[in-house]
Amino acid sequence: MKQYIQTNKERFFEELFSLLRIPSVSSKEENRPDMKRCADRLVELLLEAGADQARVCPTAGHPVVFGSKLVDPALPTVLVYGHYDVQPAEPLELWKSDPFEPEIRDGAIYARGANDDKGQLFMHIKAFEFLVREGKLRHNVKFIFEGEEEIGSPSLAQWAKDNKEMLSADIILVSDTTMISEEVPSINCGMRGLSYVEVKVTGPDKDLHSGHYGGAVANPINVLCDMISSLIDKDGKITVKGFYDDVVELSAEDRAKLARAPFNLEEYKKFLDIKEVKGESGYTTMERTGIRPCLDVNGIWGGYTGEGSKTVLPSEAHAKISMRLVPNQDSKTITRLFEEHFKSIAPDYVKVEVTPHHGGDGFLIPISSPAYQAASRAMTEVYGVEPVPSRGGGSIPILADLQRILGIDPLLMGFGLERDTIHSPNESYLLKQLFCGMEAIALFYRYY
Amino acid sequence: MKQYIQTNKERFFEELFSLLRIPSVSSKEENRPDMKRCADRLVELLLEAGADQARVCPTAGHPVVFGSKLVDPALPTVLVYGHYDVQPAEPLELWKSDPFEPEIRDGAIYARGANDDKGQLFMHIKAFEFLVREGKLRHNVKFIFEGEEEIGSPSLAQWAKDNKEMLSADIILVSDTTMISEEVPSINCGMRGLSYVEVKVTGPDKDLHSGHYGGAVANPINVLCDMISSLIDKDGKITVKGFYDDVVELSAEDRAKLARAPFNLEEYKKFLDIKEVKGESGYTTMERTGIRPCLDVNGIWGGYTGEGSKTVLPSEAHAKISMRLVPNQDSKTITRLFEEHFKSIAPDYVKVEVTPHHGGDGFLIPISSPAYQAASRAMTEVYGVEPVPSRGGGSIPILADLQRILGIDPLLMGFGLERDTIHSPNESYLLKQLFCGMEAIALFYRYY
Repeated sequence: MKQYIQTNKERFFEELFSLLRIPSVSSKEENRPDMKRCADRLVELLLEAGADQARVCPTAGHPVVFGSKLVDPALPTVLVYGHYDVQPAEPLELWKSDPFEPEIRDGAIYARGANDDKGQLFMHIKAFEFLVREGKLRHNVKFIFEGEEEIGSPSLAQWAKDNKEMLSADIILVSDTTMISEEVPSINCGMRGLSYVEVKVTGPDKDLHSGHYGGAVANPINVLCDMISSLIDKDGKITVKGFYDDVVELSAEDRAKLARAPFNLEEYKKFLDIKEVKGESGYTTMERTGIRPCLDVNGIWGGYTGEGSKTVLPSEAHAKISMRLVPNQDSKTITRLFEEHFKSIAPDYVKVEVTPHHGGDGFLIPISSPAYQAASRAMTEVYGVEPVPSRGGGSIPILADLQRILGIDPLLMGFGLERDTIHSPNESYLLKQLFCGMEAIALFYRYY
Repeated sequence: MKQYIQTNKERFFEELFSLLRIPSVSSKEENRPDMKRCADRLVELLLEAGADQARVCPTAGHPVVFGSKLVDPALPTVLVYGHYDVQPAEPLELWKSDPFEPEIRDGAIYARGANDDKGQLFMHIKAFEFLVREGKLRHNVKFIFEGEEEIGSPSLAQWAKDNKEMLSADIILVSDTTMISEEVPSINCGMRGLSYVEVKVTGPDKDLHSGHYGGAVANPINVLCDMISSLIDKDGKITVKGFYDDVVELSAEDRAKLARAPFNLEEYKKFLDIKEVKGESGYTTMERTGIRPCLDVNGIWGGYTGEGSKTVLPSEAHAKISMRLVPNQDSKTITRLFEEHFKSIAPDYVKVEVTPHHGGDGFLIPISSPAYQAASRAMTEVYGVEPVPSRGGGSIPILADLQRILGIDPLLMGFGLERDTIHSPNESYLLKQLFCGMEAIALFYRYY
């Protein structure tokens, strides 16, 4: 496929950029028309690439793009999953170029979604196009590109249930994750789940002058800090009652296998500009993000946050809190346990509200499966080294749902790199990874 | 003065409203021209009221308005202090009417500054006008209205030093505080000081995806919560090393005197819609706000605070933290102790910055002083009951400075009420208090 890429490179850029220019931020109401535009554009691209049919399918939320090419019912079917929605680009002032005007700098494309997931899903369309045009396609291929991954895929599970027949396949193929490094390709064989909640702590029913009331009335910000602080103990364990009940401890053997992945703590710290890492006692950094659950405050706000000073004792304080879960932990159960726990630790002098946002379960895929083996062979050929099986810290909760609903295992061939800083300002995607990804995907079809 | 108020009421409203319409928010750069407009308007009002001279005096920051009428060097001189700057009006959506378009509803004026301090300083101008026009003025009167009280008066102390001669007086008269309640007039004989800082906690040098890093990298929001939580112990004591070193414990006798002020805990809780109060063990609610120092988070922010969810492990978290101080605690010392302490408790995995905002010392005035006695007599005549000496929780740090620089005691005849919710949305000032205040001030001049 190398030659094909060389010949069509400029057209590929134009096509990918046309997707990246659309600010398809699923969490923002104002971007609803952009979601539709982006879905329409994907339909065009699928048809141009050689799909028999492609269409925008309405759901309760943002639409799903579905397309397919059926070669022969006797051949195996690959179901490609991707998502065309992106995270908000804020804080905008930290971007070196417009997040929705892609720019190539130093061998990488810079834009919101350059990697996650527009850049990665685009590789699948182009590998498919190559196989069709060269007459090499020996599989039935189906595509689903959803528009709600970044908000927890609230509609896709129902849509998949309603279209179970149409989605039947042998493997779900996904590129929405990272490799360990440029030199160390890896295939993700498990992902963490997610429980995401928003909490609100209310003290007095109005903002007060902190001089008149300070010292006598509980300040909801201080109380929220106390409560958040109590959620993780000194050993880095989450204190939510029952939180670890369903966590399966890995065997020493499995831990040893995962530890084979190369990891340099000093480089890791240097990359993040931190003096020390921090996490659960008794686990390595890779284990802390791979096989152990965790809790993070993703946002906090309350009181006066503007320029200068204001001596206010505010009425309310808020936080967004998420927990990463490991396979066998049930996202809904954890959300319920969190809510119960958070309310139980609320002192008398405040009121507490907990609002669940989205969530999803983690999952695992067997390394011995034919799909994993085909991917491994394809990546070995492209990168010259055998990929390492890894466990991913992030979450694609919908994959666990699809696995359950459709009865098909997902395979994660991700080509992102840590340096891409997805979800952050200056998200990027290396051209090298874009092109190697296309090659590896085309080879996957050869070996699967 | 009752009759004079009756006759001139409509004009009074027009004049006061002309001040309230100017958004003189000292903390906002964009309002700088409004500060000047407000100062100019005060000069007009002072001259119209009968001042010999009045002018806008430049300082390093917002200007001071100075005006005076010298009747006879042999007579005592009253120096009236007030401030024409106001707090920001945010959050705007909680105001029932435009904060800068005053409205009279249910017997009260609603506007930012209606009480604090435009409404209260206006009483002084009108009581002065009455005495001048009726030929009853038997004092020399000087006015200073500053424009930086809400940002900690960074320029006034230097300006006062530079103009010590011009400001010579026998008493500093101030209306910028509250009475205990509508039925219980009080005179404030002591105020708390203030130390106000902003802190920033930095973890990794970029925002990260919480799925990829969560559990292994310290989240600066969680760390900030831990650090804030540790600043107050289970007994409500502030843990900053050396914080209480200079706090003078009140004698049992003095505590008994202050306890005479009527206070109904159930009504207090009902007014604030809280189930329980919270504060330092071993002290009553009145003592907690009157004679004890405290620490409050006035604002906190970090991570994603917009609509929906974002799974970010942010690079930074911020908070504005203030400490109310009691007389004998030195604001600068406390700020230094806080900074040292906060840095000392910062874990290895984050960086911490502390930026001092503003501060000031507390002060006390003797109940036996002639000025206190004159104010007490005046308020007794207007309200029909003897005012209670009280200790105020708020801070007017500059008064402690003026007391030291000019060698003059400040007397706080405040007519605000708790219901006025200064610094909050829907700040108001009861017309009854506006007019009773004018009367009481006019009578103060009779008895002093």
